[in-house]
Amino acid sequence: MKQYINPKARDWDALMERPTANYKDLKPLVEQVFLDVKSKGNQALTDYTLEFDKQKTTSFTVEYEAFERAEKHISSELKKAIQLAKKNIESFHRAQKTDIVSVETQSGVECWQEKRPIEKVGLYIPGGSAPLFSTILMLAIPAKIAGCKEIVLCTPPSKAGKVPDVILYTAYLCGVTQIFRVGGIQAIAAMTFGTETIPKVFKIFGPGNQFVTVAKQMATQHHVAIDMPAGPSELLVVADQSANPAYVASDLLSQAEHGADSQVILITTYYPILEKVSGEIKKQLPLLPRKEIAMQAIKNSKMIAFNSNEDAIAFINQYGPEHYIICVEEQDLYVGQVMNAGSVFIGNYTPESAGDYASGTNHTLPTNGYAKQYSGVNLDSFLKQMTFQKISKQGIQNLGPSIELMAEAEGLQAHKNAVTLRLNDLNQ
Amino acid sequence: MKQYINPKARDWDALMERPTANYKDLKPLVEQVFLDVKSKGNQALTDYTLEFDKQKTTSFTVEYEAFERAEKHISSELKKAIQLAKKNIESFHRAQKTDIVSVETQSGVECWQEKRPIEKVGLYIPGGSAPLFSTILMLAIPAKIAGCKEIVLCTPPSKAGKVPDVILYTAYLCGVTQIFRVGGIQAIAAMTFGTETIPKVFKIFGPGNQFVTVAKQMATQHHVAIDMPAGPSELLVVADQSANPAYVASDLLSQAEHGADSQVILITTYYPILEKVSGEIKKQLPLLPRKEIAMQAIKNSKMIAFNSNEDAIAFINQYGPEHYIICVEEQDLYVGQVMNAGSVFIGNYTPESAGDYASGTNHTLPTNGYAKQYSGVNLDSFLKQMTFQKISKQGIQNLGPSIELMAEAEGLQAHKNAVTLRLNDLNQ
Repeated sequence: MKQYINPKARDWDALMERPTANYKDLKPLVEQVFLDVKSKGNQALTDYTLEFDKQKTTSFTVEYEAFERAEKHISSELKKAIQLAKKNIESFHRAQKTDIVSVETQSGVECWQEKRPIEKVGLYIPGGSAPLFSTILMLAIPAKIAGCKEIVLCTPPSKAGKVPDVILYTAYLCGVTQIFRVGGIQAIAAMTFGTETIPKVFKIFGPGNQFVTVAKQMATQHHVAIDMPAGPSELLVVADQSANPAYVASDLLSQAEHGADSQVILITTYYPILEKVSGEIKKQLPLLPRKEIAMQAIKNSKMIAFNSNEDAIAFINQYGPEHYIICVEEQDLYVGQVMNAGSVFIGNYTPESAGDYASGTNHTLPTNGYAKQYSGVNLDSFLKQMTFQKISKQGIQNLGPSIELMAEAEGLQAHKNAVTLRLNDLNQ
Repeated sequence: MKQYINPKARDWDALMERPTANYKDLKPLVEQVFLDVKSKGNQALTDYTLEFDKQKTTSFTVEYEAFERAEKHISSELKKAIQLAKKNIESFHRAQKTDIVSVETQSGVECWQEKRPIEKVGLYIPGGSAPLFSTILMLAIPAKIAGCKEIVLCTPPSKAGKVPDVILYTAYLCGVTQIFRVGGIQAIAAMTFGTETIPKVFKIFGPGNQFVTVAKQMATQHHVAIDMPAGPSELLVVADQSANPAYVASDLLSQAEHGADSQVILITTYYPILEKVSGEIKKQLPLLPRKEIAMQAIKNSKMIAFNSNEDAIAFINQYGPEHYIICVEEQDLYVGQVMNAGSVFIGNYTPESAGDYASGTNHTLPTNGYAKQYSGVNLDSFLKQMTFQKISKQGIQNLGPSIELMAEAEGLQAHKNAVTLRLNDLNQ
């Protein structure tokens, strides 16, 4: 990792630069797949699954029996671990339920806000080297608590043409209503338009490679919402003499193993920790199975020492990390002043892995600085709020004259008239 | 308005079609303006304001003195009306504040969720025939309650090169921190990139014409969030024998006067009301100053009678109206079963105008069927939620083994290692 000592504010922007991908090249391909899935439905899914995944399939539905078989193939230890994670994620997301907000803003004018579930949601779970069943926990559990009626999951078939057992088990456990063995652009297109088999959904969630990322962007042009814009995963650790350098190194590496484009940043006001953590990384890195990936990510990553907490905090807020670990003596200062972060991990015994899997918080978080304006996935991601109002005769008599004046000042006479008609009747 | 009696479900999609605009043609222009504003800053704003608004200006900032002058030019009645609206909108949006959600998901594992303000927000207020100051109330009030530090407002100069007094007065009253006299694509680009004068913001809110709509879409490709996708405004009324046909007609017309592309739909299970409302529209329409616009909108609008409440409700939910007025005897049924709507107005004395201006609810709402997956603007639109966690030694000992198992099953050894290191130390 490159080291920077007390960089000037004018150099911060450069230090904050994320690896940027240019997805423009992928747009024509994604557009073509969308067109084909829209017009040809399942046939296009079959064609593209053959082309991209080298799988011959005409049936995308995973039948109930497959769940039962899957359950038998998973160790009871792993099942217990998944169940524990589920319990924690459930209790944290259930606590996010809010009551109806009801206010009589003035006499006879009742206003209230209620949240109702997004009826149909689609979860995308990538395939690839390992089955990312933890993301199912993070998406299906709040969808279920929110009361979404249809929770559709798409995931690419493995090389054997199947969906991994642990994906099936977790999906079933968490209340996914339908699973389809289809991945990539064609899966996102299928959930966007619907096919003979796969239902159209209103909002699509979940991570994916560059093709899936562009496909999700494209989906938003066809009346579908998405969870948030995607980018490579990232971690920022702030550490001082109270931090354990071996733990810090292990946390940085856990982020680095995600991908060569992962972002890892260490911030400190205690300069000696830079060398200590570097030494620990050198020790731990060679032992990792994914060391090639982690090494590339570490190469592009940065260690930055600042003279003051103020500068460190200002830098961190300007960066807006997805994951943010705080291992410093002045913990309260750093926790209190964080303005922009996806999820915050506090103290030496709170590794990012805890939130990635099982503590209860969600791991679907804004990357690439989007923590400045986006929330991570939470219960509200599966709900939309609606407002209601009910005005009595007395209420419109109280409020009406103000509405008339304002509508007139905006030049909207019919808006005024809707009130005037009622007031005239009531004042007779 | 065209009448449809008990249409078959297979014909519903066609009945629900909104006027669609094809904005593709505008993209090259918007892209060019964005490029220029990014590279040339204020100079580009000056150039495009001359080109599009026919105004020569090099200074975009509205000075404090202008507020003081503006206040003097507004009638005390209108000021009182705006202040009443402000009070109601404030009390409804302040009630939406939520507490920190904190859960000890298992012994030693503390998780909590906190909302913090989006630091910099931009509000766009269109110019045109009349100054839409009501939208400032709807955007600046919740921004202020949320605690946004910078609340920037851009609005095009009038023909006299000024910002209308009522815009200045309302903006100042509601806590807008900076006002700039610049509109259209160049204003959205300025808030996206920042210029020498106008700050870059993190999220842009507000309505606008087709150019502004495309510019807001473009902004999302440059790290800026927007309130929601835009579309023409719309109203659906469900009415039966308990409704007052004159009131229903006045509500439909208040929506229709917004624009020729406004959508107006009347649904009923009581067939005779169709003729009664048609008669009232014929009476009221010719008296409106904006009758040409309203007439076009009414021409494209629909009256639909259904045989049953079930069908009517299913249709309404599939349509997902922005504004939804319920004037029926079985009010509770219709209120209880609405799944997709922006804002709901209940009873004969609750015209849409009330929510448009002064009752307290927000008028920035999802159109074009987006009520299926988007909330209207509310307090949370100006906040983002972050999660926090703090795990004790005991906590990681309780939770750690499950994390290790799950990380291993996902093939992420470094994730596991971050836990194992800590557990090894603690178990020594």
